[in-house]
Amino acid sequence: MPSISKRGYDMPSSPIRKLVPFADAAKEKGTEVFYLNIGQPDINTPVEAIQAIKNIDREVLEYTHSAGLPEYREKLTKYYGRFDIDVDKEDILVTTGGSEAFIFAFFCCFNPGDEIIIPEPFYANYSSFGEAMGINIKPITSKYCDDYSLPPIKEFQKLITAKTKGIFICNPNNPTGYLYSEDELETLRSIVLENDLFLLSDEVYREFCYDGYEHFSALNLKGLEENVVLIDSVSKRYSECGIRIGALVSKNKTVIASAMKFAQARLSPPLLGQIAACASLDAAPDYTQGVYDEYIERRNVLVEGLNKIPGVKSLLPKGAFYTMAKLPVKDSDDFCEWILRDFEYEGQTVMMAPGSGFYFSRYLGKDEVRIAYVLNVEDLKKALVVLEKALEVYPGRK
Amino acid sequence: MPSISKRGYDMPSSPIRKLVPFADAAKEKGTEVFYLNIGQPDINTPVEAIQAIKNIDREVLEYTHSAGLPEYREKLTKYYGRFDIDVDKEDILVTTGGSEAFIFAFFCCFNPGDEIIIPEPFYANYSSFGEAMGINIKPITSKYCDDYSLPPIKEFQKLITAKTKGIFICNPNNPTGYLYSEDELETLRSIVLENDLFLLSDEVYREFCYDGYEHFSALNLKGLEENVVLIDSVSKRYSECGIRIGALVSKNKTVIASAMKFAQARLSPPLLGQIAACASLDAAPDYTQGVYDEYIERRNVLVEGLNKIPGVKSLLPKGAFYTMAKLPVKDSDDFCEWILRDFEYEGQTVMMAPGSGFYFSRYLGKDEVRIAYVLNVEDLKKALVVLEKALEVYPGRK
Repeated sequence: MPSISKRGYDMPSSPIRKLVPFADAAKEKGTEVFYLNIGQPDINTPVEAIQAIKNIDREVLEYTHSAGLPEYREKLTKYYGRFDIDVDKEDILVTTGGSEAFIFAFFCCFNPGDEIIIPEPFYANYSSFGEAMGINIKPITSKYCDDYSLPPIKEFQKLITAKTKGIFICNPNNPTGYLYSEDELETLRSIVLENDLFLLSDEVYREFCYDGYEHFSALNLKGLEENVVLIDSVSKRYSECGIRIGALVSKNKTVIASAMKFAQARLSPPLLGQIAACASLDAAPDYTQGVYDEYIERRNVLVEGLNKIPGVKSLLPKGAFYTMAKLPVKDSDDFCEWILRDFEYEGQTVMMAPGSGFYFSRYLGKDEVRIAYVLNVEDLKKALVVLEKALEVYPGRK
Repeated sequence: MPSISKRGYDMPSSPIRKLVPFADAAKEKGTEVFYLNIGQPDINTPVEAIQAIKNIDREVLEYTHSAGLPEYREKLTKYYGRFDIDVDKEDILVTTGGSEAFIFAFFCCFNPGDEIIIPEPFYANYSSFGEAMGINIKPITSKYCDDYSLPPIKEFQKLITAKTKGIFICNPNNPTGYLYSEDELETLRSIVLENDLFLLSDEVYREFCYDGYEHFSALNLKGLEENVVLIDSVSKRYSECGIRIGALVSKNKTVIASAMKFAQARLSPPLLGQIAACASLDAAPDYTQGVYDEYIERRNVLVEGLNKIPGVKSLLPKGAFYTMAKLPVKDSDDFCEWILRDFEYEGQTVMMAPGSGFYFSRYLGKDEVRIAYVLNVEDLKKALVVLEKALEVYPGRK
């Protein structure tokens, strides 16, 4: 029997996935589980997208251009224009979700052995694919006590070696909800320029910025046109995670040309998803406003509720729809499993994502959980009660 | 300006892609171009698939299970059962096209530096992704004079080293149209077992076997349950290339568990495509029969026509919908460009795929082209006339 590859063996299984059997067992027992662990919103997809799918008038569901449907890419340039991001159709490559965008960026920008710096906590799938491609991840820790802001420039400098080829940020941030300021991006700009790095910027939560804060795109950093590769996706923006449509955007024509070769080698992004994504760009302004208002309310209810629970702390996220909450527990992996396996309050329990899954550094995140406010306010309130009651009796409290 | 990665730079651009600007220019001049270069059939997608999309009754287009919709995987086990391939739902992982299936297989089965043997000519995208992952491709040449059958066992033995970890076949074959016999598969079986290799088998053209020949799946090789990884796709079968739905199928639970980690890291295969693929499994038997009859007729017209052109030779393909034709030219890359750039007959020309793109060995394929019989009989006849007239005046004839 042939043995699988080392990279196939080493590929990490997300800590969330380990919890799934416990959540399934809880449901089986009749317990209602509030899923606050995932980035799958319960918000409706724009009706324009659903209608476009229902109205499909084709007899052959054929390949699209490997870079995506021209009309969709054309409309995307206008979409980006609304955020003062000035790009041409040729700067945009439509991908199979944001996932494929960062996979292509990794392939094009980094060789095996190259190092990339990623502020942690970060979205775990960056590192899992990166490592499978032989890229060495160098985490730099953003701290709760600093609002999870960008670590100081000298911390980056400590990590930079001859092998450093890039920095990867997510802005607004999953999992912290932090929104990098223009000043922080300027700091990154100087590090990137000085060391001739790529700056990969995952901006899929662009439209989820709250309290008057405005998103500043890495693509608008002056003099960094050749360095920035933007990762995008319609999944969260239009609550259409299942259509698998993202984009890789860059002014660096060599990167686009290289990414295009990977795009051609996988032939085509999904046709049906592109039809839905293209129609979503026509969603009425009140769709976006409605979604925005809903998230603001959810965030406020969740964060206020969390901070009322003895020993629990949460910052007020400026963007995205997650918060990294501090819990009074010794090991949140254990707590997240325990609450599903051994606890219920009035027939209800909660699934959360253990913090450790978002840290590359082994011992961090043990007193944190990521909570996605993707459920309605009523369910969030119930989930908060479950969490409070659970912490009162959990044996692993610190 | 940071430089792109070596693997991003080295990623080959398909020879077909280089022809696209010439085809576009020909069209611009008003010349009708017959596209015989691609595997995009003009056959209708089953109405069941289109209807399922039109009837979609969902308000949120959400992620599916990372391994694919359970009901689709369940139905797939019955589909495979019709071909005496006995698999469980747990042996099937739904992928984003056949492309993602072989990408996952490469990640899971092979380390950088490992060697895999692939009979050439072969589908070029195998090697391009393989090389980007650091896998070394070792081609073994199938020859026209041997009907492109499996090279003798001793040719395989010459290539096997301590680093050899797999053999990759495509059956029925793209680009040759060859169908491996049960005997040939038994030969592979002995090599694979003796050397403890993985056998990756791309069987996306399973249902396109002609003249009473029957497909024998690698999954049915006795004693090879742990070695075989099947690559599949609905793209060609139901003429729905754009929905991007494929599958990775294996009885090796370690491979499936590892592939599942990659699947989870990219979250979900396309929801809408899965809905279409699932409905396609209900296509009326006369759909498959109609498609089959159509391809038989096209094949016969094409191959008969090719063999009537002085200096041109083509075998009669036993499967798939391609033939590798021998042309009386010194350099088919040049000929394929010339016919688009400098030639037209009665306002028509032809786009074909140069043979060189299907050979890993540098100097092979120069007198071959791959012709896909994906157009209707009338267009094929016109294309044959264009080809004949072109060869009469082409200056690079040998």
